[in-house]
Amino acid sequence: MKNCNNYKKVDSKDIDILTSIVGKDRIFIGNNISEDFSHDELGGIENMPDVLMEVLSTEEVSKIMKYAYENNISVVARGSGTGLVGASVPIHGGIMINLSPMNKILELDEDNLTLTVEPGVLLMEIGKFVEENDLFYPPDPGEKSATIGGNISTNAGGMRAVKYGVTRDYVRGLEIVLPDGTIMDLGGKVVKNSSGYSLKDLICGSEGTLAIVTKAILKLLPLPKKAITLLIPFEDLNKAIETVPKIIKSKSIPTSIEFMERDVILAAEEFLGKKFPDNSAHAYLILNFDGNSKEDIERDYENVAQICLENGAIDVLIADTDERKEAIWSARGAFLEAIKASTTEMDECDVCVPRNEIAEFIKYTYELQDEFNIRIKNFGHAGDGNLHIYILRDDLSEEQWKDKLNKVFKCMYDRSRELNGQVSGEHGIGFAKKQYLFQSIGEEQRELMKRVKLAFDPKNILNPGKVCE
Amino acid sequence: MKNCNNYKKVDSKDIDILTSIVGKDRIFIGNNISEDFSHDELGGIENMPDVLMEVLSTEEVSKIMKYAYENNISVVARGSGTGLVGASVPIHGGIMINLSPMNKILELDEDNLTLTVEPGVLLMEIGKFVEENDLFYPPDPGEKSATIGGNISTNAGGMRAVKYGVTRDYVRGLEIVLPDGTIMDLGGKVVKNSSGYSLKDLICGSEGTLAIVTKAILKLLPLPKKAITLLIPFEDLNKAIETVPKIIKSKSIPTSIEFMERDVILAAEEFLGKKFPDNSAHAYLILNFDGNSKEDIERDYENVAQICLENGAIDVLIADTDERKEAIWSARGAFLEAIKASTTEMDECDVCVPRNEIAEFIKYTYELQDEFNIRIKNFGHAGDGNLHIYILRDDLSEEQWKDKLNKVFKCMYDRSRELNGQVSGEHGIGFAKKQYLFQSIGEEQRELMKRVKLAFDPKNILNPGKVCE
Repeated sequence: MKNCNNYKKVDSKDIDILTSIVGKDRIFIGNNISEDFSHDELGGIENMPDVLMEVLSTEEVSKIMKYAYENNISVVARGSGTGLVGASVPIHGGIMINLSPMNKILELDEDNLTLTVEPGVLLMEIGKFVEENDLFYPPDPGEKSATIGGNISTNAGGMRAVKYGVTRDYVRGLEIVLPDGTIMDLGGKVVKNSSGYSLKDLICGSEGTLAIVTKAILKLLPLPKKAITLLIPFEDLNKAIETVPKIIKSKSIPTSIEFMERDVILAAEEFLGKKFPDNSAHAYLILNFDGNSKEDIERDYENVAQICLENGAIDVLIADTDERKEAIWSARGAFLEAIKASTTEMDECDVCVPRNEIAEFIKYTYELQDEFNIRIKNFGHAGDGNLHIYILRDDLSEEQWKDKLNKVFKCMYDRSRELNGQVSGEHGIGFAKKQYLFQSIGEEQRELMKRVKLAFDPKNILNPGKVCE
Repeated sequence: MKNCNNYKKVDSKDIDILTSIVGKDRIFIGNNISEDFSHDELGGIENMPDVLMEVLSTEEVSKIMKYAYENNISVVARGSGTGLVGASVPIHGGIMINLSPMNKILELDEDNLTLTVEPGVLLMEIGKFVEENDLFYPPDPGEKSATIGGNISTNAGGMRAVKYGVTRDYVRGLEIVLPDGTIMDLGGKVVKNSSGYSLKDLICGSEGTLAIVTKAILKLLPLPKKAITLLIPFEDLNKAIETVPKIIKSKSIPTSIEFMERDVILAAEEFLGKKFPDNSAHAYLILNFDGNSKEDIERDYENVAQICLENGAIDVLIADTDERKEAIWSARGAFLEAIKASTTEMDECDVCVPRNEIAEFIKYTYELQDEFNIRIKNFGHAGDGNLHIYILRDDLSEEQWKDKLNKVFKCMYDRSRELNGQVSGEHGIGFAKKQYLFQSIGEEQRELMKRVKLAFDPKNILNPGKVCE
């Protein structure tokens, strides 16, 4: 790419001009920038921006980009910084635009079932707001303190993807700012659109490298009136996982199908100081069903419960009260933090494989655990084939850790490719997973992606060094 | 764009080499090319290709593109030719690749609920095949003899978009051939994918200008077990249409909501030689509901029926037998042909507006009918805001027709823009609607689309002169 290492360093004249855009209370340099802005939730990849700017409007974003573009200064947009692949790390320094202060819910349109939001609104705020209005925003990534702008940038998935799809499926329209400062509207409140190339769908999942999202029009659904959770213990993980394609084939589609093993549950119990409803079995599936009546849901879950019992489930525990559901899902929500607390450092692999290959892939992670003598923990979205596999450092030296991690990752991504899987189901590529993406898609597709990047960003100033570079 | 009018004319040496790719039985020149290949379903835009080639494999498509790219020959891909905007007309001559012979259903994967098909498979064949396997491919455009490749290229919508979305929502993976002959896989059977830019979503709806689709992996759903149709007469169209946002707001989402007027029904009765179940009222809504039990559906439709009656419906006629449903939907399916048969020539406008602006837009078409003294017929997808408005030539002279049509179109597209609508809901831009797209998206977005086009097709040889050019 052009200018890759030749960005203008931000100097005091730049700071004066940038200050004139946002005022002196919303611009930070040097020691006034919190160290938090040098990294996301992934450790190991970090760099401080030269200047951090808080923005309150699309016009401010546009003015900053116009100045940066004219002066060849690199820019990174950031929300809550909850990413897991270093996508929002300003590896070339330059300007960081903090979009979190653009956090207004702008409009609920009940006639069109849309919600218009600024990018800094948090996922948990959207969920709460629409539910209070008896509506539903289905995407449900685990990290509820992520911003919607971040969710759009990674095309975040979450647990309900089995039935409801991912973030892209719920983005009807976007306002974006291009690298040169141009403000552009894509899509809108319309339900159908075949009016030229769907740039909106390309922006979703582009990890802040093509444009900065400054407004989003989200599609809502009516809130399902009833939900039920099944906790299903199995003798071993393999039996649990092998049941999943049979559930899918049965045509009773649950809202979500999660899997976990006993030791992850024990870690969560310790972490939360709360008991899980059952921890006697080696492996579990958690299934959620939603619908508008108890009868709808019952028909589906009875069918699925039967399939599980025929395939080696020890029991089927039904959680139909808020309290019991909460006990299960709060534990599920704590798995990541619980595993993190159980070791010194960890890294994760977010492959997505066809649903009938999950068992095969998980079996392989066990072989790797033995072969490399390193702890590997699995849990994830069995219903959509998106696995979250954590490799734990424990007491390895820095050198041993890097070495083993690289080898284990290489094996996993190679195996995923053999099973027709993709490098990332929902966390994206960012900086950390680039080499695995390149191996997966090949040189020709990578070159095509780079040309698409240049179509949006001819000077390559927006979030350089990420995704396809 | 580069080389816009400077393509190499196909000569006898080219024909020899192209013949070596497909053999002499699948290549046609001069009078051996049927006139059908010079146009699609839209009249008025036509040109013959220099050479027509039938293909049977991805490798053949790749070899043809490689040769065309090296020799700067323009290429257009074509399926059934059922488009309505001239997207598959070879306006620069050159090579036409007929993908219809690539018409195999390759794999039904019940574990992953996917169907893998070649691009020439017809929509009606997909519907029949999956239903026989108790599965469901929801996109339901009116033209069932369209190919799936064509449906993907226009991101076709259809009647079930209200509840189920459009073609793009059901494309999990694509195999494509780039303009230089490179074969590339995008996506796959995976449910989630955040692995670099979603080129797959960009190809959907790009009207054969970025790449040629040679294989598609489609997402299927379980087949809903029950469906019911409501035919709801209203005193006037305005009352019918104004009820639609109230239905959406009520949170009982029908599978489809169509609207029509009495004179379109009478035309369909004459065209089909069959009676519609009711033709006494001035306007109608047809609603479809699907689900897995009679009770599920009843709850929803009783709620919606009540809303209709409160908003001026004269009655609610329930069609719950196959025979009665068939009587309604076969008439609905014949509207386009019936209107066509009632006049000498017609053109159509396929705008999509937010659902609560449909009434406003339709009222405006009546004003235009009076102002320009020209017959305008409406029917369409009230549930998703996608209108099909037909302007009829009747006995106007060529000059009068062109003049009135241009003026009426300009008024309609301007009004759609004022209502935050889009130029095309499902038929695409092709050649015929370019000027309206340019006015709608503005120069900056058009330039961005052109840069994206060049990223895929640097020599601009694939379907030139369409969409953003």
